[in-house]
Amino acid sequence: MVKRYLTVTSLDATLSLLNTSFACIPSREVVPLLKSVGRVTAEPIFARYSVPEVHLAAMDGIAVVSKETEGASEQHPVTLDHALRVNTGNVVPPRFDAVIMIEEVHVQNEKFTIRKAAPPWQHVRPAGEDIGESEMALPSRHLIRPSDTGALAAYGITDVTVLTVRIGLIPTGSELVPHGDHPSPGQVVESNTVMAEAMLVTLGGTCTRYPMVKDNPDEIKKILRQAVAENDLVIISAGSSAGTKDYTAEVIAELGEVLIHGIAIKPGKPAIIGRIADKPIIGMPGYPLSALTVLREIVLPLLHRFGLPVPSWETIDALFTVSVSKDIGSDEFILCSLGHVGNRWVLSPLSRGAGVQMSAVRSNAYLKIPAGVEGFEAGKSVTARLTVPRTEAERALLVTGSHDPLLDYLADLLMQKEVDLHSTHVGSMGGILTLKKNECHAAPMHLLADDGEYNIPYLQKYLPGEDVVLICVTERQQGIVSKEGIGFDGLCGHTFVNRQRGSGTRMLLDHLLKKNRIDSSDIRGYEREVTTHLAVALAVKSGEADAGMCVYSAAKALGLCFNPVASERYEIAIRSEYLDDPRVSALCDTIISPDFKAILHRLGGYDTRETGVRRVLP
Amino acid sequence: MVKRYLTVTSLDATLSLLNTSFACIPSREVVPLLKSVGRVTAEPIFARYSVPEVHLAAMDGIAVVSKETEGASEQHPVTLDHALRVNTGNVVPPRFDAVIMIEEVHVQNEKFTIRKAAPPWQHVRPAGEDIGESEMALPSRHLIRPSDTGALAAYGITDVTVLTVRIGLIPTGSELVPHGDHPSPGQVVESNTVMAEAMLVTLGGTCTRYPMVKDNPDEIKKILRQAVAENDLVIISAGSSAGTKDYTAEVIAELGEVLIHGIAIKPGKPAIIGRIADKPIIGMPGYPLSALTVLREIVLPLLHRFGLPVPSWETIDALFTVSVSKDIGSDEFILCSLGHVGNRWVLSPLSRGAGVQMSAVRSNAYLKIPAGVEGFEAGKSVTARLTVPRTEAERALLVTGSHDPLLDYLADLLMQKEVDLHSTHVGSMGGILTLKKNECHAAPMHLLADDGEYNIPYLQKYLPGEDVVLICVTERQQGIVSKEGIGFDGLCGHTFVNRQRGSGTRMLLDHLLKKNRIDSSDIRGYEREVTTHLAVALAVKSGEADAGMCVYSAAKALGLCFNPVASERYEIAIRSEYLDDPRVSALCDTIISPDFKAILHRLGGYDTRETGVRRVLP
Repeated sequence: MVKRYLTVTSLDATLSLLNTSFACIPSREVVPLLKSVGRVTAEPIFARYSVPEVHLAAMDGIAVVSKETEGASEQHPVTLDHALRVNTGNVVPPRFDAVIMIEEVHVQNEKFTIRKAAPPWQHVRPAGEDIGESEMALPSRHLIRPSDTGALAAYGITDVTVLTVRIGLIPTGSELVPHGDHPSPGQVVESNTVMAEAMLVTLGGTCTRYPMVKDNPDEIKKILRQAVAENDLVIISAGSSAGTKDYTAEVIAELGEVLIHGIAIKPGKPAIIGRIADKPIIGMPGYPLSALTVLREIVLPLLHRFGLPVPSWETIDALFTVSVSKDIGSDEFILCSLGHVGNRWVLSPLSRGAGVQMSAVRSNAYLKIPAGVEGFEAGKSVTARLTVPRTEAERALLVTGSHDPLLDYLADLLMQKEVDLHSTHVGSMGGILTLKKNECHAAPMHLLADDGEYNIPYLQKYLPGEDVVLICVTERQQGIVSKEGIGFDGLCGHTFVNRQRGSGTRMLLDHLLKKNRIDSSDIRGYEREVTTHLAVALAVKSGEADAGMCVYSAAKALGLCFNPVASERYEIAIRSEYLDDPRVSALCDTIISPDFKAILHRLGGYDTRETGVRRVLP
Repeated sequence: MVKRYLTVTSLDATLSLLNTSFACIPSREVVPLLKSVGRVTAEPIFARYSVPEVHLAAMDGIAVVSKETEGASEQHPVTLDHALRVNTGNVVPPRFDAVIMIEEVHVQNEKFTIRKAAPPWQHVRPAGEDIGESEMALPSRHLIRPSDTGALAAYGITDVTVLTVRIGLIPTGSELVPHGDHPSPGQVVESNTVMAEAMLVTLGGTCTRYPMVKDNPDEIKKILRQAVAENDLVIISAGSSAGTKDYTAEVIAELGEVLIHGIAIKPGKPAIIGRIADKPIIGMPGYPLSALTVLREIVLPLLHRFGLPVPSWETIDALFTVSVSKDIGSDEFILCSLGHVGNRWVLSPLSRGAGVQMSAVRSNAYLKIPAGVEGFEAGKSVTARLTVPRTEAERALLVTGSHDPLLDYLADLLMQKEVDLHSTHVGSMGGILTLKKNECHAAPMHLLADDGEYNIPYLQKYLPGEDVVLICVTERQQGIVSKEGIGFDGLCGHTFVNRQRGSGTRMLLDHLLKKNRIDSSDIRGYEREVTTHLAVALAVKSGEADAGMCVYSAAKALGLCFNPVASERYEIAIRSEYLDDPRVSALCDTIISPDFKAILHRLGGYDTRETGVRRVLP
């Protein structure tokens, strides 16, 4: 029988329990001053000596006894008996108490004549001006900045005692292969503890990744016991669910106690909080985005209590573009693309699959939908949390519509202009509707109308009277991808993989089927939909289907055969009002750049003769 | 004759010239994935294989042929001929196209019976769901986040090619000693290239610090030639001024050209922009805060052009607390303490001395006053740039008034409660006036009135009718500090060092002199003013003065003699409305904590019997 969580604990209750259950006493380590930036002091730091230790000249000039300069004026110059030539930074010996700038001194035969009195301590940097011997330069718990290192160096400090937390990371799972190995089908690269280490080390954590352990409770127990002895906190990756091969909770219970099994968050529900020898043990789910959520929402707050410098996520109020429903009772975290369109921020969800790490890579923000909410309608105002600096979010260019691999290359080129292209693949029709709602900057499309015209008839229908410009990216070849060179006329005899409804490629296929009087029900797999050209090619390469329709570059990338069936106009629609937006103009400039055209030629299947041609709606 | 800058270039013109004069082509380096967080990709990164490579079960259950499940219902259960037990993550072999959760399956004698049809591809993670083979995972110029590393690890990436800039750092100056050595009088620790390296390495720079060079043009030239050959950018520390021993400009001119000598910024004016072999050469002034300003305002924008991830400083509008005047024509940068008091942000300048590195350490913000402005009045609204995260600035507790070394220890204890105490030493009277203007949270003071009462008469006079609470920190001993045990009655025969007018210590001294009928003009050095207790003790230790008046802890810290002359009440005045502010209540809690009392006893000269006693104005 399958084990189930008896109870699921809310995120708030989980965080409270962590607060009350653990003392969170950090460890300390000594690091060289040059490695101390971003670390947190474990104890106050005191100046070893005064800086400066003696009075110094603050100007090039002469050191004088101020009393001897009294009465000097233009009318009554004074020639000094006692004076000493000093440069900036030279010691002002104790018998002197002022410095006169060399420009104000007449020098002849090593005699100094002045025409203005010097008040005591003029142009003298007094001993201890910067800091006094034994004075506290930095308190404990101070986050060390680069400018602090200069001061500490000057005060005689070469090493700094900083806070750390020793964190043991235990990867479990019989299906794991180490990072760097190519996994066989059904195997998985052990990437979650890599991500955890990368994240926790930047905060000053000292991570030990233990060897991968198979799904064997005795082996897990042995390594967990060792990890608890050697660390302040232990994170066990995977095995935290309730399946037949999930032993994490059982092993924690044997060595200590399970405080929580199952947390009301999505993704991340199968998480565990345990305690062994008064130390916190976190069972982190195996799905990468579940792991990410548990790290961000549970482990980071815990490390903050240990004193590590966990950053706060900046928030931005934005319009959420789609309707979502969710289970009541769980906090749900949705990775999103955030961009500023028109006069407001727009937030679009990325794939919610817990295995889709590209959602994390593509996202620049995330949304927390609280447990008490069942979901909400598109157009709601929400508060997003940024995962990039705000300035980077301001550079986001939202491109929503038809997918083509060339968009990734456009994104690559645009990064050099500091524009961050976020492309969302919702098909050509999806792009038109997003453009209509003014929720993207640009919508790529290739929609063939009955009259043989591309795109314009659809824009006229859906955005009548609106001021929209079409910019041609390329004329591109669509064709049948296969292992064996199947052509359009051979489709009926083979298994097919289709694109989703609303995509231009799907509409092109339907157009061609109709034209050739082929009934779609004669095509096996017609109902099997995927959302990108590469997904079509992959389905063919993996043997799931014999053929599909996609662009040439996708077939070429996977070394498959390609039989062209049509050339189509792939254009980007942009509201004219945004053409002057620096992000949009960078996009337009990049489309016509020689670098981009060279990439199109290299990828193959793209004709650039029309590239950059602008059309306005008649 | 002293050389002078012929012309001084504005900061804006300097940055423009840097933009037009240098191509800023970054270098690249390959780093292990785990070391790549915070770095910027030098080229796009592609997935080595699809993830997943084949269809996987997304649930524990059975893999089925969806067609065979058609028609299954509660009334008509279907027992399947073809099905395979799978766990989450197991391969779904090509002959199957759906998964049914195990909870929905009746298992008997290895036969599977179901009561609900499975639509095609139900609970299947399709091959390439996350990413397809050859697909672009990251564009170039992407700032790598921890969550990206997990994805890259899963996609088969072990090493990442990232941008760097090779930066040569050349410390010059005959007065320098290496970081870690105790400087003799007139010597200086070489801390500027330490600070530069600490700052530039965090951005992904590859720094080479060359050996210190004396003020010798031939030696500087030799090492500069080597540094130019080995780096993309060279920074020469010091020697950039126009003194007799400043050779930086001369050497750059011999190897290439000096584009700018003298930039209209304060601090930082004696800076140089040069070009050798098409590479930028920066002459960075020797004063630490001048160096910091040149790094922040000139080198960081240049590195941004090279593609390094230079953070943008967040800004906050604040009320500036003092009047400032400045030279027109120069941008001036003033390090400040920023805190939120009442309903607005308050910005107070720290010492403007270019050698006072503690200003950088103590500051959490800075103010740029543009070249065109001559200065402004106190109370002006200005825009500050933060040098800490905004959340840290929100934790700033502004304590302004009388100085005592115990404030540093209070600050240290408060950091553990995440309160960041910023103390500004303006004397007791200065604190009262700041409190009156509502520009601080708390004002420490020890003002003796003629009637022998402490503090209350002054608050009644300057803040009549206001709701203010006094909290006693300690009764503390003031006394005469000396090397030889001088007492109050011995002051006339020795040199004295005084505290500034308005400080409680000065007022106590004047009170005692008057009471003892001593004329201040009989005290040699009475007019010599310093601003802290430790500065008084330092002046005595250095031999500048024979005696001064300060608290016991300062004398003890420097191992000097101390003759008590009075015990005084050191209290903190707080507007009652702020007592509930978490920062202020943390301060009050800390004052009465056993930890703090233990520190006071250890420091010595403090009586804690009255500590924590509250008094309200009658």
